[in-house]
Amino acid sequence: MRAALTGINRRALLSTLAAIPALPALLTTVTRAQAPASELESWNEGPAKQAILDFVHSTTDRASPKFVQPEDRIATFDQDGTLWVEHPMYSQMMYCLDRVPTLTSEKPELKQEEPFKTVLSGDREAIAKLSTSDLEKIIVSTLTGMTTEEFDAEIKKWIATAKDSRWKRSYTELTYKPMQEVMSYLRANGYKTFIVTGFGQDFVRVYSQQIYGIPPDQVVGSALATKYSYAKDGKPILIKEPKLMLNDNDAGKPEGIHLMIGRRPRAAFGNSTGDRQMLEYTGAGDGARLMMLVLHDDAQREYAYGPAQGLPDTKVGTFTQALYDQAKKNAWTVISMKDDWKRIFSFE
Amino acid sequence: MRAALTGINRRALLSTLAAIPALPALLTTVTRAQAPASELESWNEGPAKQAILDFVHSTTDRASPKFVQPEDRIATFDQDGTLWVEHPMYSQMMYCLDRVPTLTSEKPELKQEEPFKTVLSGDREAIAKLSTSDLEKIIVSTLTGMTTEEFDAEIKKWIATAKDSRWKRSYTELTYKPMQEVMSYLRANGYKTFIVTGFGQDFVRVYSQQIYGIPPDQVVGSALATKYSYAKDGKPILIKEPKLMLNDNDAGKPEGIHLMIGRRPRAAFGNSTGDRQMLEYTGAGDGARLMMLVLHDDAQREYAYGPAQGLPDTKVGTFTQALYDQAKKNAWTVISMKDDWKRIFSFE
Repeated sequence: MRAALTGINRRALLSTLAAIPALPALLTTVTRAQAPASELESWNEGPAKQAILDFVHSTTDRASPKFVQPEDRIATFDQDGTLWVEHPMYSQMMYCLDRVPTLTSEKPELKQEEPFKTVLSGDREAIAKLSTSDLEKIIVSTLTGMTTEEFDAEIKKWIATAKDSRWKRSYTELTYKPMQEVMSYLRANGYKTFIVTGFGQDFVRVYSQQIYGIPPDQVVGSALATKYSYAKDGKPILIKEPKLMLNDNDAGKPEGIHLMIGRRPRAAFGNSTGDRQMLEYTGAGDGARLMMLVLHDDAQREYAYGPAQGLPDTKVGTFTQALYDQAKKNAWTVISMKDDWKRIFSFE
Repeated sequence: MRAALTGINRRALLSTLAAIPALPALLTTVTRAQAPASELESWNEGPAKQAILDFVHSTTDRASPKFVQPEDRIATFDQDGTLWVEHPMYSQMMYCLDRVPTLTSEKPELKQEEPFKTVLSGDREAIAKLSTSDLEKIIVSTLTGMTTEEFDAEIKKWIATAKDSRWKRSYTELTYKPMQEVMSYLRANGYKTFIVTGFGQDFVRVYSQQIYGIPPDQVVGSALATKYSYAKDGKPILIKEPKLMLNDNDAGKPEGIHLMIGRRPRAAFGNSTGDRQMLEYTGAGDGARLMMLVLHDDAQREYAYGPAQGLPDTKVGTFTQALYDQAKKNAWTVISMKDDWKRIFSFE
């Protein structure tokens, strides 16, 4: 209901004022494409912007054969590399690394153990070389064993102070303005927007409302189990457990969407092979569907990486040539950050 | 966004018309208690109705020290025995039993195996005596192995035709009118309403929008895993697997709420020991909280069961004396169907 009250509803009320006293216009304004194209002001004219406009028009115009009932308007967004910067390392991974000193001061026996020893050394090159299983060990150790409230408080504190090394700005400032505009535009047209992240949903939920206008229950992500128990004073608590309930990557994305949203999205946005199945699943439904992939091809304003179009490969957000080919074959739209986005960040 | 468009938003727009041209009134109407008490028309005056009114007033009046921001207004409802009739058997269990003939015609080797043999015999007494593990076997066999789309289509077909044996009406007509009114009243006051059911979320999601005005993504329940794969024609599908991801009963309710909603509810409604932890967890938060339990004490108009107040015990919805005592101790409100509800069903 939050979105209704702070987002579209207020918007609808304001449109209402403009429309008064035209009652019929008033009653249709919330289900018809009402946001002017100028809402996508950070987008250059081109096929990507046009695909978004065409999709919204055809699914919200009652006269369109592709009209979609408001209750079926679901749009899902990957986060890292799709909504904000993921390079050179996912921000949640940065959080986990930053937590290691606290963890090892609580459990000093870990100081001499790998991979904690390497993290404590501060040797960036060695840290960058840690294996996936080492990183998983760090993730599980730093994200479990506390109550959900303690966890939320830690994330909130970290996200308010941590800075990205290139822009010297907080991570929450490094969201892509064009994507914020797409989410607002979809919401203004009756779409319910969800984040579907490969990283932890509990992490993203702490700031999703403030940064993206998306309430916690509309954030789907990898999830560790919790265990209901009682604190010493008898107060009920939920403890975060080292047990993975949902790995929200690859095939886990459509599975997570079914688990948490229960409906097939009408639109899905991603940027890497981990989003492939989400886009396939979205595209397999009938009627109008919108599938988009963000290509990081702007080394100047952001980064250029991923084997698609011969860009260098990195550890994060792999946009392979195979994914690029599948996008072309399935008529998914590839968004070129370089060509399609007038500006990338709000602070520019 | 559906609720925004078909529920509160339309309501807000209509209130808007009434308020024009008083702009300040217009802009506050969506966050202040706006629904008149007459919306709870099926409730008798008494402590239960008063508890609901007091809670809504104190959490939606900006001048109240207990005011709750719209984005934090979360209310959760158990389904069976709280929103609709659960006696003599949960409707989803009825569905599973009804599916056995189809299952055994597809897999004839099961016809001679228990518990399928007993179900096929049609001997109601023997069926009523099946053990919990027999029932679980029936549940898993009848709810898995198909695509999510096939499953939805089957449920939709069944729910449209199946009848309750006492009222000879479809199950969806057997929702409690007073509880429908509470959900509408909460939504009209900015609360996002969720179902938190011990039975399968995929089952409830098929009809939740139509029957309760609650979209599928606001239904939390016990969940079987799905597996992403491809049909013979290459189309991506999700297959329902015999693997329990979430047992949304008892401690599983707050755990499920954390997994799917990510916030502690402000209000929670239940009717049995399976809802105890959900109410405890809700009550453990600060500020105003509303915890309510429906007591089935009306043998004439519905049923009277559960050991609380010396009613007969049954297999479903056990409201134990211990739960009753805990409710009194924790100041949870017990709703007497007999005394608090003027009418129980819409068709009365």
